[in-house]
Amino acid sequence: MQAEVKDLLLSNQELTDTALERLLPPESQVPTSIHKAMRHSTFAGGKRLRPVLAMEAARMIRGDGNLPQGIEELGAAIEMLHTYSLIHDDLPALDNDDLRRGKPTCHVVFGEAIAILAGDALQTRAYEVLANLRCPAPANVEIIRLIAQATGTVEGMIGGQVLDLEGEGTSPTAASVDAIHRAKTGALIRVSVVTGGIYAGASTEDVNRLTEFGRKAGLAFQIVDDVLDVTQDSAQLGKTAGKDLASAKATWPAVFGIEASRKHAEKLIAEAFAEIAPYGSAADGLKSVARYLVERTH
Amino acid sequence: MQAEVKDLLLSNQELTDTALERLLPPESQVPTSIHKAMRHSTFAGGKRLRPVLAMEAARMIRGDGNLPQGIEELGAAIEMLHTYSLIHDDLPALDNDDLRRGKPTCHVVFGEAIAILAGDALQTRAYEVLANLRCPAPANVEIIRLIAQATGTVEGMIGGQVLDLEGEGTSPTAASVDAIHRAKTGALIRVSVVTGGIYAGASTEDVNRLTEFGRKAGLAFQIVDDVLDVTQDSAQLGKTAGKDLASAKATWPAVFGIEASRKHAEKLIAEAFAEIAPYGSAADGLKSVARYLVERTH
Repeated sequence: MQAEVKDLLLSNQELTDTALERLLPPESQVPTSIHKAMRHSTFAGGKRLRPVLAMEAARMIRGDGNLPQGIEELGAAIEMLHTYSLIHDDLPALDNDDLRRGKPTCHVVFGEAIAILAGDALQTRAYEVLANLRCPAPANVEIIRLIAQATGTVEGMIGGQVLDLEGEGTSPTAASVDAIHRAKTGALIRVSVVTGGIYAGASTEDVNRLTEFGRKAGLAFQIVDDVLDVTQDSAQLGKTAGKDLASAKATWPAVFGIEASRKHAEKLIAEAFAEIAPYGSAADGLKSVARYLVERTH
Repeated sequence: MQAEVKDLLLSNQELTDTALERLLPPESQVPTSIHKAMRHSTFAGGKRLRPVLAMEAARMIRGDGNLPQGIEELGAAIEMLHTYSLIHDDLPALDNDDLRRGKPTCHVVFGEAIAILAGDALQTRAYEVLANLRCPAPANVEIIRLIAQATGTVEGMIGGQVLDLEGEGTSPTAASVDAIHRAKTGALIRVSVVTGGIYAGASTEDVNRLTEFGRKAGLAFQIVDDVLDVTQDSAQLGKTAGKDLASAKATWPAVFGIEASRKHAEKLIAEAFAEIAPYGSAADGLKSVARYLVERTH
């Protein structure tokens, strides 16, 4: 990874973490158990890729190299939604995962009841944060609407989780892999890019470009995730490796093989870059983050 | 129950049910299992008391006897949030209830994984509906902010669920009962009244009066709920009766006895009525619903 990209990622991660620290109730706040659980999973070493994408999309639309004030609060809300989905996905009734980002999962530490409620509460808190965003109407309500859609049941995150669950044990096809990826992880990545742009005042044409960029980058990200699950071990990944294969999950390499998957991710990123070419050097930050999505090794 | 109140409740329930029917994805929408689960629990015979309170508060603030256009969508969103909390509360890891409103609970019919995700999705869908409300900014964002607060961990619904869980098996005190009730059910009832008023254009003074009214009516409602749990059988309640006592839950009658509890509920409703006395006959609808809250028998 180039030093520049690393600095960009790190500074955005720090902004996001500082916002999360401020926007989540402290551990000492009653009832303490749920606030500890919310923080345990939120501060478990996540890479904050969705917030970083939102921030760099906002920087690109703003166009003067700076981030719009308060954009890190949008990133923090998106990260809360991502974390809530991980907590629930890891529950015994769903994926039954004991390890996430190298740490014991929420229900392992706090029990199932608190883990269910901590996930619920991260979703709730995300919308409270979104309702307090410092961007003018109607952008603030539009951001809430788009995020709710992207995390819902119809072509959104929860819908993807259901398709994924229901597909377990059946042979994955190209169509099923595509539908699951688009919904389960793709939609939240896409909406991170789009709402970052809207926060910074994106026009309808900007939103269309960001939507296409986000769609392609999100799919590339998930393909690389699937490839890493096959090629890396648990210590490198910080989560249980090879699980997708063991449970016959619908993944890209299972259908197309590892090499074709890698090539397809590269092609998608090239297409994503073409979408934002009109922004010239203002798009450099967003492009370097997208490049990182497919070149990362964990 | 007087015929007038019955008509009022029924017509508001119908408006809410029609909105819910329109605002929830159809059962035929892929992935079908989660949409069936969301509808199973939403259309399980709920009395729609929170939507009815929101609608009557809006009618009172409007002052001409009519409901503001689209108010039933606010009611529907609030009912989705209430239903999500019931689905998760009934899970084996929490209250482990097989019966709710006389029907098998969501996880009994659809399994735990889908029940967890159906609860999540009802919360998500509620915010999407709230983002589409037909009231002007900034009232729409204020409604989202207040509802997220009232359903959150700090003196909100989830916080109350946690206090309730953690208190099981310990002796309930007046202070613990009060804290749990205020948060677990009181906050959502209060915010239903308040946001109904805001939807109709409530002033700051209106909001203060509605807040006090909602706080008192919400507590009275929960006290009556606790009393019914002790005095009615399962067939009358449509849920497992006597469960609170069996699990040493913090309830009003357990601390103060049945008669004192009934009297306290009456006193609270009288105080609540005093709060909205300045609205004269415009408050009649809201008052008759509040009266029903404490006189109901199931």
